[in-house]
Amino acid sequence: MHLGATYRGDGKSSFTVWAPNQKTVSVKIVHPHEDIYTMHPEFLGYWRIDDVPAYAGYQYVYKLGNSLERPDPASRFQPHGVHGPSEIIDHSQFNWNDSSWEGIKLRDMIIYELHTGTFSPEGTFEGIIKKLNYLKDLGINAIELMPLAQFPGERNWGYDGAYLFAVQNSYGGPSGLKKLVDSCHQHGIAVLIDVVYNHFGPEGTYIQDFGPYFTKKYNTPWGDAVNYDEAWSDGVRNFVIQNAISWFKDYHIDALRLDAIHGIYDFGAKHILRELAEETERFSNENGRKRYLIAESDLNDNKVITPTEQNGYGIDAQWSDDFHHAVHALLTGERKSYYCDFGTLDHLIKAYREGYVYTWNYSENRKRFHGSSASQLSAEKFVICTQNHDQIGNRLMGERLSQLLPFEALKLTSGVMFMAPYIPLLFMGEEFGAQTPFMYFISHSDPDLVRAVREGRAREFAEMHMGKQAPDPQGSDTFDKCKLRWECIDKPNHVQLLLFYKEMIRLRKKSLVFTEMNKKNSSFEALSDKKVLVLRRWSKNQDLLSVMNFSEKSVPVISSNAEFKGVKIIDSSDKEWGGSGSTMPLEIEPDKEYVIQPYEFTIYVKDNG
Amino acid sequence: MHLGATYRGDGKSSFTVWAPNQKTVSVKIVHPHEDIYTMHPEFLGYWRIDDVPAYAGYQYVYKLGNSLERPDPASRFQPHGVHGPSEIIDHSQFNWNDSSWEGIKLRDMIIYELHTGTFSPEGTFEGIIKKLNYLKDLGINAIELMPLAQFPGERNWGYDGAYLFAVQNSYGGPSGLKKLVDSCHQHGIAVLIDVVYNHFGPEGTYIQDFGPYFTKKYNTPWGDAVNYDEAWSDGVRNFVIQNAISWFKDYHIDALRLDAIHGIYDFGAKHILRELAEETERFSNENGRKRYLIAESDLNDNKVITPTEQNGYGIDAQWSDDFHHAVHALLTGERKSYYCDFGTLDHLIKAYREGYVYTWNYSENRKRFHGSSASQLSAEKFVICTQNHDQIGNRLMGERLSQLLPFEALKLTSGVMFMAPYIPLLFMGEEFGAQTPFMYFISHSDPDLVRAVREGRAREFAEMHMGKQAPDPQGSDTFDKCKLRWECIDKPNHVQLLLFYKEMIRLRKKSLVFTEMNKKNSSFEALSDKKVLVLRRWSKNQDLLSVMNFSEKSVPVISSNAEFKGVKIIDSSDKEWGGSGSTMPLEIEPDKEYVIQPYEFTIYVKDNG
Repeated sequence: MHLGATYRGDGKSSFTVWAPNQKTVSVKIVHPHEDIYTMHPEFLGYWRIDDVPAYAGYQYVYKLGNSLERPDPASRFQPHGVHGPSEIIDHSQFNWNDSSWEGIKLRDMIIYELHTGTFSPEGTFEGIIKKLNYLKDLGINAIELMPLAQFPGERNWGYDGAYLFAVQNSYGGPSGLKKLVDSCHQHGIAVLIDVVYNHFGPEGTYIQDFGPYFTKKYNTPWGDAVNYDEAWSDGVRNFVIQNAISWFKDYHIDALRLDAIHGIYDFGAKHILRELAEETERFSNENGRKRYLIAESDLNDNKVITPTEQNGYGIDAQWSDDFHHAVHALLTGERKSYYCDFGTLDHLIKAYREGYVYTWNYSENRKRFHGSSASQLSAEKFVICTQNHDQIGNRLMGERLSQLLPFEALKLTSGVMFMAPYIPLLFMGEEFGAQTPFMYFISHSDPDLVRAVREGRAREFAEMHMGKQAPDPQGSDTFDKCKLRWECIDKPNHVQLLLFYKEMIRLRKKSLVFTEMNKKNSSFEALSDKKVLVLRRWSKNQDLLSVMNFSEKSVPVISSNAEFKGVKIIDSSDKEWGGSGSTMPLEIEPDKEYVIQPYEFTIYVKDNG
Repeated sequence: MHLGATYRGDGKSSFTVWAPNQKTVSVKIVHPHEDIYTMHPEFLGYWRIDDVPAYAGYQYVYKLGNSLERPDPASRFQPHGVHGPSEIIDHSQFNWNDSSWEGIKLRDMIIYELHTGTFSPEGTFEGIIKKLNYLKDLGINAIELMPLAQFPGERNWGYDGAYLFAVQNSYGGPSGLKKLVDSCHQHGIAVLIDVVYNHFGPEGTYIQDFGPYFTKKYNTPWGDAVNYDEAWSDGVRNFVIQNAISWFKDYHIDALRLDAIHGIYDFGAKHILRELAEETERFSNENGRKRYLIAESDLNDNKVITPTEQNGYGIDAQWSDDFHHAVHALLTGERKSYYCDFGTLDHLIKAYREGYVYTWNYSENRKRFHGSSASQLSAEKFVICTQNHDQIGNRLMGERLSQLLPFEALKLTSGVMFMAPYIPLLFMGEEFGAQTPFMYFISHSDPDLVRAVREGRAREFAEMHMGKQAPDPQGSDTFDKCKLRWECIDKPNHVQLLLFYKEMIRLRKKSLVFTEMNKKNSSFEALSDKKVLVLRRWSKNQDLLSVMNFSEKSVPVISSNAEFKGVKIIDSSDKEWGGSGSTMPLEIEPDKEYVIQPYEFTIYVKDNG
């Protein structure tokens, strides 16, 4: 069932809303003049009216019963924010120039995650467009936008979205997003967006007046769970499915990143994620271009990314937090909170081998067995990173690795990621070692809510950051500090790190070892007290050996990788990348002793013959 | 991890208890003399002590911290009920005589569900043993005992069990159960027991003092859910797995019926039911005889009974409530509560074809889409019935079909069940049309709890039974009324119904059409305004045609079942079974008109050549 207002092209609009709680529902035009039209009840709690005299650009609310006036849950635009009326959008008005766009295959993606508000000085879609040449030059071929659904105020990560179908007004609204996607496609860049189906924002969410969007059956970190399996859940399920389809259809979005699916509780016989995957597949088939679903999941549950034919949910890929944690804990030495489950080279090797580190082994942090095997799943089922908005931002001070590790280690983390058989994801600014933090920020208008967020935030991080002064999430200076400072990009170290990333991306895209994504064709050797990893990966016609030093000291290494003799193709300690010079040989041979520099990362390619 | 007290055979016992909440744990012998021994902490919250001077028959409690004294959560016997001490049991003392027992294959089972307390005059295991010759003569080859885990008092369906490992003292305790199982096996009868892993009884449950057995993550009809996926859940999971294994190992139980698995909430990567299935499989393999798991499930979710290799939970079979509801609503005309989703012959045909009637179609009762397809699942995945403890007992007055339908219709329901490709289950007394109700009864000692149950019960059935006086669940007369009255068994109608059941069971066991359990080899024809069903089922060498009249009137029928000419092998309207005489022919031919009597049930076998 299509939802919301649809401009019909003849001065008339039709409206559909799901409101099973209500006995009468009307649509009330509030701008440019006032008018009210009684809607008709349909099957399963839907209300509908056609032929309302209303042009695109008109603003409206729904009148529920005798007095309650509410914006449209499926509003496409909230020009005055979460508390204001909804605006009729005419999607046919935009002239798309991407008809030749064929998309980027998921397995070929190199993803760049960004937050629209802090990525560019403008903090808008327009600001991103200005950086597309930069991104193309960097080599990435997909951007992933943090959530765009209308949230309260102008400063928010996006996870407080209250209108799932409405593009944030302060970012540029629906037309701004279309322009961005169109430009991206012309630059050969796919657009992924982050969508939140596990909860609704705490301010400006009025959907509970329309129907049972929530259930008390499950308790989530955000309160009552979204109702995916109880009475009337079909209306809620349709709401999110239509939402996904709307991004694909109206905005030409290439893939959705599904936020925190471990917060989507559904014990029904058809999990909403499976239905979402089926509907996405159907849309892809009908529209000649594959659209993807990528889950953020804390479950390490292989059924999420197992194909539907094998009784999985059929989600195309998921983020591997385990990979991140393995790298982070190994290099920073942090062991608090969830990092207590990581920290050794063995964890990283397991992440390289399987994607998950926890495959039904005991997690000290969770105090239970956790996860399932991913050994049978293909490598393209995992998106990995060494930094992302969550892992940076969910620290009290929002520190990036550039603030936690020496410069040389940043190149290493890049190498670690690109050597993996999985889909790499960068977080904006990572590539030039941005020093700007990514802290938590909001701009709610409800003072009680602001206080609750401030207190909750301080409590949440009490363990990890004892004694430090918490930044004020509501303060505009907190937000301002998070804006990328592009002026540093030409400065020493920043420029070399950027060049190193570009080179790694170039290698990642051209070598068959990487593009084949075969996680089985690899071997691992831990040396020097498990501080040095020798990672070998091969394809039919190429054989690569990477030696990585996770120690802050230079250490001797003897690799026993039999018969591997090869020449170096990249070395992070080279002066070219701002290093102090390497002592690793240009040509490597087995069973010889070499010395590797602190955090040095190298790749050798095997001699043919 | 093995749990509870184990008598070691040399005057010594060892004890293991899971109590991660506690800082100190001791075992305190309370009978025949007092003694206390400090236990030692082990990994993951377990406490253990070996070589405690204590014989089988000694009674004990655990002392938690400085003052709290509690029975053993894994107690094998509570001689003085749920609030008393636990008793050490020596399982090696029983002399088993069933070493030649090979079990009954699940697909061959004809199950007889019984409630120990009301089945026999004695209300004990001993009372069941006295009836084994009767049951063998009836033809069933498996009995399913309603839950035996120690509950409060002496009168209870069993779903208020507080000690999962302890056999109800008033039924005969551990030795009584062993004697029953041993006798059954010598009679060629398998023993299934009903186990409850979705909640613990409201009285006498002290496990929460030991560890986090419950979680607030999910809200169930019984309050907080059992903790299968949160911190420390491994201790709870081990508890139920050890419990299942204990029934198999210590009591030679053939199969477990898992109560209401829709109340087992587990979002972890390995569902507890899957782990239970894996451990049951492992036990079966190690012990040379297959043990089965049968779920009661309200989910219509095929993953429950899909093999683990296909990413299912691997439960062997499940009850099909849909089959019951389809028959019940069709014959009684009841449409209240969940019966509103049933009532037509089409529902019954779907149940025959798939096992589930709701396969992701809209349920008016649930107000949502419900279920998944079972078309790919084999017929032996479903246990069906037309009566069981729930469907009789979950009515305010506990009426059996014998109190709701005419005598002729009782034979029809029997025929409907046995004609299905699924595993049949009878509820005690059904076979002779017992007139005793099966009402809800308890014998709690906590007056607040008794009041709450009384009120809750009245509320629950307000819709279905307006105006009727509710029986008092706590009253002993309510229980007494539910005891089977065996003296009626030789009386008219009762005796003929019993003979009819015997004959149907005999046919069910001998015909290849039935024993092959091929649900695909069947066709359905609805006649006479969808009141008459012509069900044809065939195997390689036999072809059966059943004509069933669900109407209270005699109606004309013309079956178009091409080329089926056959002779009648059973007819419920025959005087032999207490009927008034049939007008259906001895030899049936296609396209001829016959008249079928009210509720008449017939089977014809096709002429060979």
